[in-house]
Amino acid sequence: MSSPASPTGAPPPIDCLGVVGVGLIGGSFALSLRRAGVVRRVLGFGRTESTLHRAVELGVIDEAAGSLAGLARCDLVLLATPVGQLPGVMQALSRHLSPRALVTDGGSTKRDVIDCARALLGAALPRFVPAHPIAGAEKSGPDAARAGLFEGRPVVLTPIRETAADAADRVHALWQATGARVMRMEAEAHDRALAATSHLPHVLAFAMMNALAERPDAEAMLELTGGGFRDFTRIAASSPEMWRDICVSNRDLLCAEIDGYAARLAVLREAIARGDGAALEREFSQAREAREALGRRLANEAAR
Amino acid sequence: MSSPASPTGAPPPIDCLGVVGVGLIGGSFALSLRRAGVVRRVLGFGRTESTLHRAVELGVIDEAAGSLAGLARCDLVLLATPVGQLPGVMQALSRHLSPRALVTDGGSTKRDVIDCARALLGAALPRFVPAHPIAGAEKSGPDAARAGLFEGRPVVLTPIRETAADAADRVHALWQATGARVMRMEAEAHDRALAATSHLPHVLAFAMMNALAERPDAEAMLELTGGGFRDFTRIAASSPEMWRDICVSNRDLLCAEIDGYAARLAVLREAIARGDGAALEREFSQAREAREALGRRLANEAAR
Repeated sequence: MSSPASPTGAPPPIDCLGVVGVGLIGGSFALSLRRAGVVRRVLGFGRTESTLHRAVELGVIDEAAGSLAGLARCDLVLLATPVGQLPGVMQALSRHLSPRALVTDGGSTKRDVIDCARALLGAALPRFVPAHPIAGAEKSGPDAARAGLFEGRPVVLTPIRETAADAADRVHALWQATGARVMRMEAEAHDRALAATSHLPHVLAFAMMNALAERPDAEAMLELTGGGFRDFTRIAASSPEMWRDICVSNRDLLCAEIDGYAARLAVLREAIARGDGAALEREFSQAREAREALGRRLANEAAR
Repeated sequence: MSSPASPTGAPPPIDCLGVVGVGLIGGSFALSLRRAGVVRRVLGFGRTESTLHRAVELGVIDEAAGSLAGLARCDLVLLATPVGQLPGVMQALSRHLSPRALVTDGGSTKRDVIDCARALLGAALPRFVPAHPIAGAEKSGPDAARAGLFEGRPVVLTPIRETAADAADRVHALWQATGARVMRMEAEAHDRALAATSHLPHVLAFAMMNALAERPDAEAMLELTGGGFRDFTRIAASSPEMWRDICVSNRDLLCAEIDGYAARLAVLREAIARGDGAALEREFSQAREAREALGRRLANEAAR
């Protein structure tokens, strides 16, 4: 599904990195590239004065740009805003971006970002390399940003046919400089995979949390939760706005995953209803084996 | 739903604690009471010679009993075996238990254990105090046992009308000596609550793990999982045998929870399908609020 990482050289030195949206992803990208010695200066863009101010205070960015016209000063731009703000930013890029500057993003879905880029980026389109760093957390904002966020984490690039090969290679090398494992996929394959591995679990956790919270005896019920429930629902504390956008943007593939999952759950429910211990033990044993294999792989990655 | 902890005095000193099933729960109970200075000697019972040997080696028990006849030596017995072994052990208790000895258990479901006790414990029934320590982990066996396992964790007692009041109070004090927060509930209320807070999340996690593991591109998909997926599926590594027994034993209440959850998921799916961002944001915001409240409560408990 993913192609092997293409050979890339050293990351190109970046004189001025522009980060649009100085939250967890944008801030961590800036801190990571600065730590790697790749970036000289970081310019932050955003709607909220206080967030930009805080990002300067934390040393996440060097300067808050007064307007999107400042994009003209950047030779690399990371788009890390909520999806809803992308059209405005893309239009500004088409007007202001300097002719050799690169653009990448941190969006959780890729087909929608690519549609938007094709419609609005104009001459800058070949230098846009869509990316998804799989390193989210339920925390957000510049205070959550840290230089190590992407270390050993997958970052999926989904270059399109319009993408210039050298732009893809340079952006590839820059993401690698953050410590990430960079891979490349088709945008639709990415969105389908993430619907299964990320969007569906989030929807299930949100639903689980609400199913409990709405009960009349919710307080007493929550007294009885253990570590399993705590871990299972951790992702239900994720940003409602971000997950609203992800679910709407990826709704076709996500609904297909929900349907497949609901059918599977219905089969399991029937086995439970008829007390079919053998079928349940088979199902649970297979799940444990798969989960333990995943645990070993994650432990190996962490140890590398 | 739960009644406030009844006033209890110091835990009664136990000359000989019998632990049937020297795994995570049984072993930790022995270590906890020993640390509290409540227990003089621990006698271990079990089917597997090597496990008993290991438990002695680890200092979890002092001695492995040759047979269930050894129950006669104990003044407190904890039943911590898989549900399937309970009938045999209960019959042995009815024959061997000394007249003032107490019995409690660590089973995850309570109606089935109580049915079994009513059928088989005979004269010992009034001194049996059903209990469920909510402190499971995906690990098992005597090597996983530790003295701190129950600290700050809820332990639910579900005494029945046959239970002697003084037996309930003494067992209450003993569980409290492990550091647990002890509460009392009706067995059916317990089983209903746990179906919602524990059994349902486990079933959902098992199903999620298998939905992914069975895909032809499972390997590549698992490459793309993040911390959210890892936490969400951690409980899918739990014991298949234990969860088979729990699901079968609690199937009526669990199926009701699955049905309620599936209906809720279907509503959410429709909101996603029609791209209803406002409804999704409402749902996700409510979930986040509830999850953050739970997180604060758990942090406070851990700090106490």
